[in-house]
Amino acid sequence: MAYNIAVIPGDGIGTEITDAVLPLLERGSEHHGFDFETTWYEWGSERYLQDGAMMPEDGLARLEHSDAIFLGAVGHPNIPDHVTLNGLLLPIRKGFDQYICKRPSILYDGIESPLRGYAAGDIDFVVYRENTEGEYANIGGREHRGFDHEIAVQSAVFTREGTQRVVQQAFEAATHRDGRLTSVTKSNAQAHSMVFWDDIVQEVSEEFPDVTVEELLVDRASMDFIRRPETFDVVVASNLFGDVLTDIAATVTGSLGLAPSGNINPSGAYPSMFEPVHGSAPDIAGQGIANPLAAVLTGAMLFEHLGENEAAAALSTAVESQLADESAPRTPDLGGSATTAAVTADLEDRL
Amino acid sequence: MAYNIAVIPGDGIGTEITDAVLPLLERGSEHHGFDFETTWYEWGSERYLQDGAMMPEDGLARLEHSDAIFLGAVGHPNIPDHVTLNGLLLPIRKGFDQYICKRPSILYDGIESPLRGYAAGDIDFVVYRENTEGEYANIGGREHRGFDHEIAVQSAVFTREGTQRVVQQAFEAATHRDGRLTSVTKSNAQAHSMVFWDDIVQEVSEEFPDVTVEELLVDRASMDFIRRPETFDVVVASNLFGDVLTDIAATVTGSLGLAPSGNINPSGAYPSMFEPVHGSAPDIAGQGIANPLAAVLTGAMLFEHLGENEAAAALSTAVESQLADESAPRTPDLGGSATTAAVTADLEDRL
Ligand SMILES: CC(C)[C@H](C(=O)O)[C@@H](O)C(=O)O
Ligand SMILES: CC(C)[C@H](C(=O)O)[C@@H](O)C(=O)O
Repeated sequence: MAYNIAVIPGDGIGTEITDAVLPLLERGSEHHGFDFETTWYEWGSERYLQDGAMMPEDGLARLEHSDAIFLGAVGHPNIPDHVTLNGLLLPIRKGFDQYICKRPSILYDGIESPLRGYAAGDIDFVVYRENTEGEYANIGGREHRGFDHEIAVQSAVFTREGTQRVVQQAFEAATHRDGRLTSVTKSNAQAHSMVFWDDIVQEVSEEFPDVTVEELLVDRASMDFIRRPETFDVVVASNLFGDVLTDIAATVTGSLGLAPSGNINPSGAYPSMFEPVHGSAPDIAGQGIANPLAAVLTGAMLFEHLGENEAAAALSTAVESQLADESAPRTPDLGGSATTAAVTADLEDRL
Repeated sequence: MAYNIAVIPGDGIGTEITDAVLPLLERGSEHHGFDFETTWYEWGSERYLQDGAMMPEDGLARLEHSDAIFLGAVGHPNIPDHVTLNGLLLPIRKGFDQYICKRPSILYDGIESPLRGYAAGDIDFVVYRENTEGEYANIGGREHRGFDHEIAVQSAVFTREGTQRVVQQAFEAATHRDGRLTSVTKSNAQAHSMVFWDDIVQEVSEEFPDVTVEELLVDRASMDFIRRPETFDVVVASNLFGDVLTDIAATVTGSLGLAPSGNINPSGAYPSMFEPVHGSAPDIAGQGIANPLAAVLTGAMLFEHLGENEAAAALSTAVESQLADESAPRTPDLGGSATTAAVTADLEDRL
């Protein structure tokens, strides 16, 4: 049996890291005895500039039967972000009901946290972010455009189904980790949506009596990701709050260049999509110096999702060993001056 | 002429720091030759537990003719936050149209930032947070309670007037500082509200050709407050984003115990309200160890608002000199073991 993986390199450094990292994944599949077939989709901003659409109309249908999707990055300096994102990334997350965005944060050996006093191993938690609704619901509008009484409305929508399932999965994840869950809301100021979220957490917690639950307001959680990141285990949050928190998490663990993520539909009814947290980084695109490690760790998450745990572990271990090795090549974001190619060549040796 | 200041100590450490700091403000007014009369309002959670309301029905009417309001903190461990906040803090912000929440962030001499490599003077910016609408609009609801198809909706509402005026004030502030403004949105995912915000920033920027404008997404801004806080000058953001960003800012400048804020109505039609950023801190309430410095700096902002710039500067200078003095008393949040009273007594000597 061969896995069929859809590959969307996308924009900017997305294409560079995808080109660099896919061969490593193929090598991994060979070593571990499974077939890994890729279908590449040249979708993204270049296509938009030519044809007016980020992907073809039947884009989702083409991806639907793949076993997983690998996405590089989306975003272009000359196109508004809400156009590029709503043309490619967000429709896949929503259209394939990838309701969990899973983002692990680990402070690796060899990486200096920007926080004083933190050393390798001190930070190790995972964020389960709701990924299909909430503050990202495309509901709202503008009225009285240009007049003094103009208004804009943006409605966040939380469904019981949509909230329950991500909360449940986060609790479940906590039972396989240290048994601690932090739910992040803003119930004091957003009493309609967030008190609802708190109620669901309360209900679901009854199914998981062994998991300790902490409730934090998003402002306080943002502080605590900086002043006590070592205390978190599993964190569950809405789409927007998860977005902010995972970027803080990537920062305190030393680099956005190391942060992987999975947009997961646990039912398997549709494929899940794996992407590094960093974007298309137009400022360094084309220079061959993008850090491929987030993409490699993203590949490890993809393997894990396929059930190929050994191949996943091999990739993570190679990254860990490279980071711990002072003489190994590093890209500029990690303080080195190596190229993307040098970093992946070194990883290949370690695999 | 005497200023008439409304004082609401509120809950938890709010009462402790108010009791400790108000005498310093009175002393300051004597030194600088203006009269400062206070009217105290024992509103808050204790009142709620007895009478079912955080403040009397005519609460706003009673405050309306004061020259400014000093608020300690609001919040009680046995009452849901959305009850206490919507019963006292938020109605004042909204009812008096205090549309700017101004929060300066400074890394003081004598304070160690949790960020590696940052020293006194490296961080100095101010956030102008929209304070009356946006994501805090009390619009939304729940339907189908308890059923599988239950939903909750929370609508963020941005008006042209409400957005324009805070953006204008932020630009204005930038002209008196380093001439740089950062506007924080999430336009890629919230295209209704945030693209509107971006448009207003664009429009207003034409009135301020000498101010450099940077636009940042809130996730990236949260990272950048950690990885390059030295680069910010004036930051303008919506109610929710400003809330998160100012707590990050307080953290990277060393302590929530040092962060002051002003809820300002620049028109003067209604009084402005000054409050430390920290909350009621039930965990340390009643122990006499709350850090009074945020409240002192809040008093300085209040004096400045009244136009009493010398008295304001005297307070800030006293705080700076205390922080820079290694032998001066410090509360536990700053690594010392001094009481609130010891810190204010030392400040009194410096004044
Ligand atoms: C690009 C953007 C729409 C996206 C998001 O906000 O979800 C990104 O920031 C992320 O975290 O994956
Ligand atoms: C207490 C809460 C409603 C408040 C807010 O979110 O505005 C607080 O966090 C603040 O920043 O003043």
